[in-house]
Amino acid sequence: MSRSVYNFAPGPAMLPRPVMDRLRSEVLDFEGLGAAAFEISHTSPPFKRLLAETEEMLRELMAIPPDYKVIFCHGGATMQFSMVPLNLMQRRPAGRGLYVESGDFARRAIEEGGRYGPIRVVASSATERYAKVPTIPPEALDLAASYLHVTVNNTLIGTQMKEIPDTGDLPLVGDVTSEILSRSLDVRRFGVLYAGAQKNLGVSGMSVAVIREDLLGHAFPYTPNLLNWKTLADTGSLANTIHTFAVYAMHRVLEWTREQGGVAALSRVNEQKAALLYEVLDTSDFYVPLAHPEHRSMLNVSFTLADETLLPTFLNEALAEGLYALKGHKVVGGLRASIYNAMPLEGVQALAQFMTGFVRRHG
Amino acid sequence: MSRSVYNFAPGPAMLPRPVMDRLRSEVLDFEGLGAAAFEISHTSPPFKRLLAETEEMLRELMAIPPDYKVIFCHGGATMQFSMVPLNLMQRRPAGRGLYVESGDFARRAIEEGGRYGPIRVVASSATERYAKVPTIPPEALDLAASYLHVTVNNTLIGTQMKEIPDTGDLPLVGDVTSEILSRSLDVRRFGVLYAGAQKNLGVSGMSVAVIREDLLGHAFPYTPNLLNWKTLADTGSLANTIHTFAVYAMHRVLEWTREQGGVAALSRVNEQKAALLYEVLDTSDFYVPLAHPEHRSMLNVSFTLADETLLPTFLNEALAEGLYALKGHKVVGGLRASIYNAMPLEGVQALAQFMTGFVRRHG
Repeated sequence: MSRSVYNFAPGPAMLPRPVMDRLRSEVLDFEGLGAAAFEISHTSPPFKRLLAETEEMLRELMAIPPDYKVIFCHGGATMQFSMVPLNLMQRRPAGRGLYVESGDFARRAIEEGGRYGPIRVVASSATERYAKVPTIPPEALDLAASYLHVTVNNTLIGTQMKEIPDTGDLPLVGDVTSEILSRSLDVRRFGVLYAGAQKNLGVSGMSVAVIREDLLGHAFPYTPNLLNWKTLADTGSLANTIHTFAVYAMHRVLEWTREQGGVAALSRVNEQKAALLYEVLDTSDFYVPLAHPEHRSMLNVSFTLADETLLPTFLNEALAEGLYALKGHKVVGGLRASIYNAMPLEGVQALAQFMTGFVRRHG
Repeated sequence: MSRSVYNFAPGPAMLPRPVMDRLRSEVLDFEGLGAAAFEISHTSPPFKRLLAETEEMLRELMAIPPDYKVIFCHGGATMQFSMVPLNLMQRRPAGRGLYVESGDFARRAIEEGGRYGPIRVVASSATERYAKVPTIPPEALDLAASYLHVTVNNTLIGTQMKEIPDTGDLPLVGDVTSEILSRSLDVRRFGVLYAGAQKNLGVSGMSVAVIREDLLGHAFPYTPNLLNWKTLADTGSLANTIHTFAVYAMHRVLEWTREQGGVAALSRVNEQKAALLYEVLDTSDFYVPLAHPEHRSMLNVSFTLADETLLPTFLNEALAEGLYALKGHKVVGGLRASIYNAMPLEGVQALAQFMTGFVRRHG
């Protein structure tokens, strides 16, 4: 039973080792019940306690203000691409959704939004293959619009919005899937933020949404009940059987996050990790970083080789050293190291060393 | 670490002990990857193999004909309450959904269906508190309707449709959540059948739908992308990150199901299990079964005590003997033993003995 590998998968991603050990030790007996946390009723007192504590810890770690609801939704961030227009498009009489097109997932959110009403792309870096995060022109902040949607970190190409814009009375909706809990975010800048759980919050199949209360209750009449934010807020996310394993895993991940010193402490380690890799990329012409230097993601480091015929060799040699899942997304190509909170500094050091050695051997 | 308890939870429910042992042994190392099955990409070859094998085993165990698609959906059966009308209501020009109201979940499906178009309840046992499965009058089978929805097993009250009706050219849509794989079902009787995974298929947060191909492609234009059956069929259920843990757990549960001799063998054990409990219920006036004798569920045995003041004593004494989660649903009250495939005969024997002893002590 070997865990002496480092898994750079973009999500579903590695969980912290202490969390994995804990899951293992609790599989046959969660809290003395002789059952796993995912074998008991979602309405039983032990599970409801788990759910309440999960919300509490998330509130504490992110400093979520009391006038924001926290809900747990089925299906990940992509389901929110539908939920955002379903719940928010008709907030204004002739509501329109504004979108920033900063990557492939942003584009998918735009495509889905366009099925529910008028939308407008106010900024795009599509012509630059999303290597930059586009700047939002101030005149784009149309207060007659229903919302402005941004993807704060673009997982495929590896860019990141460094400053969250102040959109005033226009509700900002942020997809923070890859970056939630990786650095401090001012929740008040957002009307809504949401994240798929499979990066920094645990496992796939669930997302968390944090919603300012005044933005609830505007859903289209044909909104499926479980996709209605208000239904979930009103039922404590128990309108049906919740994804119990995801809640349980998130609870254990949040406990670990707190033990690490919280978001501020992890953010410092994340900066160190990213700096290590970008330094290697910038030291030699052997590697070609894919994101514009000013827009580089701290979470997804994307690059390729000047000589792309060496890509299979790179992946094979990395694999042999226990450095897994470094292949880039098929849309982007090349290589990518996803280094969320759970990736220890040692893993990144091992990768940086390997990369330096690879240049020596093949450069 | 004790597993010497029997967990009668209605879902999320117990998994087979060999499956739990396997999950535990693979948490830190799935297929030599040094990662859990839920820490790797849903598009990686090992995961795609797992998904393909899961579908194959389900097809084999249920004898699913080749002109039926199998899809994996986010959110459980309750999400299908929305998906059914979203995908099927407008199959006919002036389409209408027909529903049988046989229990509380059937009622929820009806409420949700009514939000998408005209519906008609063709049979109901609401006035009998759902103690019977209502008979569908032949004149109700309106071929101008889009579908007829039935709940084959009613989990709360514990009734079960013994024969699946032949609805001819009117597509029958069956919620088989509690009973999937517990007995042989002729898939051809259904246009669509679906089941939440947290009873006989593993864990919560996902459902499986089996859909005859001609019923795909009729969705309303405002159907959320991930709730569109056709999108899921066309992408092999990978339109976004699938609930990887549920797929993995289902794979292991289906392997176990096959090892037990498949559905026919488990069905015989299930009949034995149910017979044991109903015999105790029928032997003494101490116990009051809640379902009509002819409509009793093999999966959920619901009853109460003639003297209901003894209910807390019953639950406490059961708990002390390691017999867990026997409290009835709050809507129904009383007691309920959910005895899906994973519940061994020994667990039911222990409960039957306890119940007999309880009469001796308190009767």
